[in-house]
Amino acid sequence: MTGTLYLLPMLLGESHPDISIPGEVQNITTSLSHFYAENIKTTRRYLRKLDKSFDIDGSHFYVLNKKTKDEDLSEMMKPLLQGFDGGIISEAGLPGIGDPGSKLVRLAHKKNIKVKPLTGPSSFVLALVASGLNGQSFAFNGYLPVKGQELAKKIQEIEKRSAQLKQTQIFMETPYRNNQLLEQLLKTCHPQTQLCIAVNITTDQENILTQSINQWKSSNPDLHKKPAVFAILKA
Amino acid sequence: MTGTLYLLPMLLGESHPDISIPGEVQNITTSLSHFYAENIKTTRRYLRKLDKSFDIDGSHFYVLNKKTKDEDLSEMMKPLLQGFDGGIISEAGLPGIGDPGSKLVRLAHKKNIKVKPLTGPSSFVLALVASGLNGQSFAFNGYLPVKGQELAKKIQEIEKRSAQLKQTQIFMETPYRNNQLLEQLLKTCHPQTQLCIAVNITTDQENILTQSINQWKSSNPDLHKKPAVFAILKA
Repeated sequence: MTGTLYLLPMLLGESHPDISIPGEVQNITTSLSHFYAENIKTTRRYLRKLDKSFDIDGSHFYVLNKKTKDEDLSEMMKPLLQGFDGGIISEAGLPGIGDPGSKLVRLAHKKNIKVKPLTGPSSFVLALVASGLNGQSFAFNGYLPVKGQELAKKIQEIEKRSAQLKQTQIFMETPYRNNQLLEQLLKTCHPQTQLCIAVNITTDQENILTQSINQWKSSNPDLHKKPAVFAILKA
Repeated sequence: MTGTLYLLPMLLGESHPDISIPGEVQNITTSLSHFYAENIKTTRRYLRKLDKSFDIDGSHFYVLNKKTKDEDLSEMMKPLLQGFDGGIISEAGLPGIGDPGSKLVRLAHKKNIKVKPLTGPSSFVLALVASGLNGQSFAFNGYLPVKGQELAKKIQEIEKRSAQLKQTQIFMETPYRNNQLLEQLLKTCHPQTQLCIAVNITTDQENILTQSINQWKSSNPDLHKKPAVFAILKA
């Protein structure tokens, strides 16, 4: 009998696990001893937070990130094929969204390994529901291009798609480039396009607000180094 | 001082709350006495499940569904403007996705009411991460058209978009029409298009599998009356 591949949620920032990780999900997480982690250090710290006496030295950690090769994936699959349960865990939120966790999941489906997703915080989905923007049709675009010209082009493209399909467009940026992204959005988007900025989700510093590009122009928020999710909808 | 508008998660099916509702979210939910519910009966049953002694008679329930008019929304906003906290709760999963909860959220942003999304189960996001399909770019399309010809056209349209944008396309169906939807997908999609079918998520009967349209043709599953989420990706 093969093991189960759990998809384990991770906290989005400094907060108590009971805010965003269900009790049974905490129990399952600390019952495992095989972890496929985007960041091993973050994962160890989290396991210690969930259970002070968690046996870290007796556990197995495998790195699953952008650099992971296909032959590493086959190696990682072995404990599951031998009957051990394992869990994929990303640096923040749910694994498989905006990170390379899905590679191992795809292989698991091929090998008839059971895949079990567990509930936890997802910054894009919390931002979406709190935005008040269209929740019947939306798209997640991951990270936008870094360079100014390509970024402007991409913003135009997704704003156009938003208008055509009446589809909320969600995207992210690494925290130290948030202000540049906001500047480009204010420059590029239609004044009446609705923009939601959701900052520090699930933490004490959480701040979520939706208003028109025009209104944002006069509010001038500082987003530097604050984890943020953006969503636009062109009416 | 105005109240906070919480976005409360609801169980996806018959399961223990600790599987998918964080402890603090359970506490916040049972601390409220104003509920904006898609389905009042389901909400009452859930509150009773969370806390056997919950004061249902001392609580206020407002219906927030497709039929809710704009003037009803203004009325619903009153307790929040008076300083009471309130929570939106849908029939399953997170409010504001595939349901009309976002109307009240939008009004809250206009009235400077704080909106606080809480973590809980979302069938489309759990299906997505467990699918192993592209989690860097994806779109949620809600419910597809009912009629055969329109449905076929819509499936062709989103399959084409999936290929063009390398975007996983997620959609749902009311459980008693699942088999017809599957039949149409098998007829319409390219044999190599990957299809994930995720059934009864978070319950003991959960079943999630991704394979090609060709492979599905020979597996012939019965999806009748089982809550399901579908996702396709055309390579």
